[in-house]
Amino acid sequence: MINYKTLREEAYEANMEIKRNNLTIFTWGNSSAFDSGKGIFAIKPSGVEYDKLKPQSMVIIDLDGNIVDGKLKPSSDTKTHLVLYREFKDIKGITHTHSVYATTWAQAGKPVPIFGTTHADHSMREIPCAEFMSVDTVLNDYEYETGNLIINTLKTYRLNPASANMILVKGHGPYTWGDSALQSVYNSSVLEEICKMALLTITIDPDAKSLPDHIIKKHWERKHGENAYYGQPD
Amino acid sequence: MINYKTLREEAYEANMEIKRNNLTIFTWGNSSAFDSGKGIFAIKPSGVEYDKLKPQSMVIIDLDGNIVDGKLKPSSDTKTHLVLYREFKDIKGITHTHSVYATTWAQAGKPVPIFGTTHADHSMREIPCAEFMSVDTVLNDYEYETGNLIINTLKTYRLNPASANMILVKGHGPYTWGDSALQSVYNSSVLEEICKMALLTITIDPDAKSLPDHIIKKHWERKHGENAYYGQPD
Amino acid sequence: MINYKTLREEAYEANMEIKRNNLTIFTWGNSSAFDSGKGIFAIKPSGVEYDKLKPQSMVIIDLDGNIVDGKLKPSSDTKTHLVLYREFKDIKGITHTHSVYATTWAQAGKPVPIFGTTHADHSMREIPCAEFMSVDTVLNDYEYETGNLIINTLKTYRLNPASANMILVKGHGPYTWGDSALQSVYNSSVLEEICKMALLTITIDPDAKSLPDHIIKKHWERKHGENAYYGQPD
Amino acid sequence: MINYKTLREEAYEANMEIKRNNLTIFTWGNSSAFDSGKGIFAIKPSGVEYDKLKPQSMVIIDLDGNIVDGKLKPSSDTKTHLVLYREFKDIKGITHTHSVYATTWAQAGKPVPIFGTTHADHSMREIPCAEFMSVDTVLNDYEYETGNLIINTLKTYRLNPASANMILVKGHGPYTWGDSALQSVYNSSVLEEICKMALLTITIDPDAKSLPDHIIKKHWERKHGENAYYGQPD
Repeated sequence: MINYKTLREEAYEANMEIKRNNLTIFTWGNSSAFDSGKGIFAIKPSGVEYDKLKPQSMVIIDLDGNIVDGKLKPSSDTKTHLVLYREFKDIKGITHTHSVYATTWAQAGKPVPIFGTTHADHSMREIPCAEFMSVDTVLNDYEYETGNLIINTLKTYRLNPASANMILVKGHGPYTWGDSALQSVYNSSVLEEICKMALLTITIDPDAKSLPDHIIKKHWERKHGENAYYGQPD
Repeated sequence: MINYKTLREEAYEANMEIKRNNLTIFTWGNSSAFDSGKGIFAIKPSGVEYDKLKPQSMVIIDLDGNIVDGKLKPSSDTKTHLVLYREFKDIKGITHTHSVYATTWAQAGKPVPIFGTTHADHSMREIPCAEFMSVDTVLNDYEYETGNLIINTLKTYRLNPASANMILVKGHGPYTWGDSALQSVYNSSVLEEICKMALLTITIDPDAKSLPDHIIKKHWERKHGENAYYGQPD
Repeated sequence: MINYKTLREEAYEANMEIKRNNLTIFTWGNSSAFDSGKGIFAIKPSGVEYDKLKPQSMVIIDLDGNIVDGKLKPSSDTKTHLVLYREFKDIKGITHTHSVYATTWAQAGKPVPIFGTTHADHSMREIPCAEFMSVDTVLNDYEYETGNLIINTLKTYRLNPASANMILVKGHGPYTWGDSALQSVYNSSVLEEICKMALLTITIDPDAKSLPDHIIKKHWERKHGENAYYGQPD
Repeated sequence: MINYKTLREEAYEANMEIKRNNLTIFTWGNSSAFDSGKGIFAIKPSGVEYDKLKPQSMVIIDLDGNIVDGKLKPSSDTKTHLVLYREFKDIKGITHTHSVYATTWAQAGKPVPIFGTTHADHSMREIPCAEFMSVDTVLNDYEYETGNLIINTLKTYRLNPASANMILVKGHGPYTWGDSALQSVYNSSVLEEICKMALLTITIDPDAKSLPDHIIKKHWERKHGENAYYGQPD
């Protein structure tokens, strides 16, 4: 019997979904699942190919960064996950990928404008892009500070992590989170699609304008507002 | 035994074809099949994954918007379908997707120029792009008004829905229709291919010119004219 | 037993290869196989889906355009194939597709510059683009005149169909030919790859220069010259 | 029993990985595996389709270019591999492909800027692009000189082949090498991904800036530095 079976299976399924959704190649990317009651999360081991992952390969980490259970080294991005779980109280999963279009926008260092309802269905704002870290910050504790950078960028943008669940880190790539590990991968896929459409939009018209506020609001609210009417009742 | 079996199966097959043709990801998009004799249509339920759809998941709606049969909530775009079935007398199917290139042209807010015979084989005109709705219209009854917007845009362009079966809604995405639900999905696929080729054409030459009228006419007529000679006799 | 079994199977395999190589969607495109001894060719029937094709669906045509054998209507592009078989003495197969990148260059109406050795391995020159036909020519006999247009364009470019086996027809798409029907499909795939790379090359540098003559010549000759040393001895 | 079984299997697996990773179409591209103890390498035969390759199809070559074992003609690029194995002492595998984005950058004749951490995870510098060869050099011994060109370009860039394992040859395409044949294919895949992201980055912003040195260094070192902490202990 494996320890922390459910949490490990949740993280495992999310990581496999990264691969199934073609959000990265080789061993790149990672997903984690958080158990807020126990204050621990399960995360992908570092540098292991997706085809070789099993639920028991997932590493269990507590919020001080200790390995609670697992034989493998956790993802090199583990501290970024840890910082986000500490700060964003209600999230249950985090995903980082190198998906092509999201990474490209991160490399261009630009927030992704809200050009259409596909975007507004998932976010009422442009997708923020966190700035480069300073030399000192990088030298200090890079992955830990990447988490802080994400938190501070959300604050600068006055975004609430409960509704704004996607960010780009300049020169690096995307981080997404959600109500579950699988939901955070879903958000990575949506972000990739938004980023692809946005790049193609400015290929047609470099001066393309953002969607008007009343249409943004309408699309957001029909999916996520108080009187949302998209989807089936729970 | 399921009620409205044939109509439901037709709508089900069309929705699955959206997925098979890679015209959308996740639960996005929807297709419906219309029975003009009974004045009802079958449509995809809201927010259900394609893999989980069955013919009996389809919801039966009448032209007043009542649910005639079905246990699930219909697509949030149901009223748009309804308005189009009321107005476009001879159509039997409607499809809405978030396909990447068609959505991109909608996001750029531009009609798609008729650059080649691939386009002229299916339409004699540029693909129209309906303008943004006003604040009041959005607040009134968004999906109903989306249908009206499509109808009015066709009128402005002096297009006949029998031959012009594709439109973009600015900032949103494509709607297509046809003689059957499957035909409306076919038109969505053709539109996506036309949109992809058009974007790449202006990437090569931002000042690319439209196809001359005599070649447009020739290609349209060999497929759809009185003396059409494409395809096999019925 | 089916008539003209070998020729039909050759044409059938070539048409299926169009589909396998993703050179077109739905029923678009067509391939034919020529028997120069008998002066007949087998061609895809018009508007039939690739999945429903069988060797016996292929239609046998003589060089006067008569249907020699077959129950279905031949491709609407049959006369273009016929004219090319009459003029290009040694070719044994012809393919027409709507492949995305080749069609895009045709829509932009530009010959494809020879930017790299991938191109030079298959042609020593830019890929020619035939001009639009006049109103009179289109009204006369469109598909027949498309063949003449291709022949005249090769002459204008001083190209020999034995070595120059690819052309774009402006606003329409690519035609390729070869020593066999399958070889003509191979050439369509190579053309698509060349066109994709060329479009991306000018995306990086709109002023990209052609490959120098001495490198073009070297690559062409190591594959097709008198002392070619690519591939295995026959 | 086949001779040089292990070396042939290694080269065979690497060549099949070229195909599995969609780095080329048809017979294009080639991979080789080097046995430094014996001073021989196994390489793909010239112009044979990947589907028809078997381990025993691989040709065994010594460092003077003699065929030591094998019934088929070796790849036309064999001398390029040979020159690199002679000069780059510690490499054990080489791969050449016509992958679309790497070939495109080679066709544009530009080194690939280091826009993001995906690139920095694998190289601390831009990907070099070797210049065109002169007429005399091409006429002399083209494939041999291609090897020399690669070696000289690395020297000009002051790059060490142990850490800089990717290069573009202007107008031609990419060469990569590594600790094993499979590793050289891995590097080809990484290069293709880097090249795709770089092209898309300048599509968003033609003036996109390189990643700052401190972030490049951090990412390189966490994967390849003395205190690297990516991946599992050996």
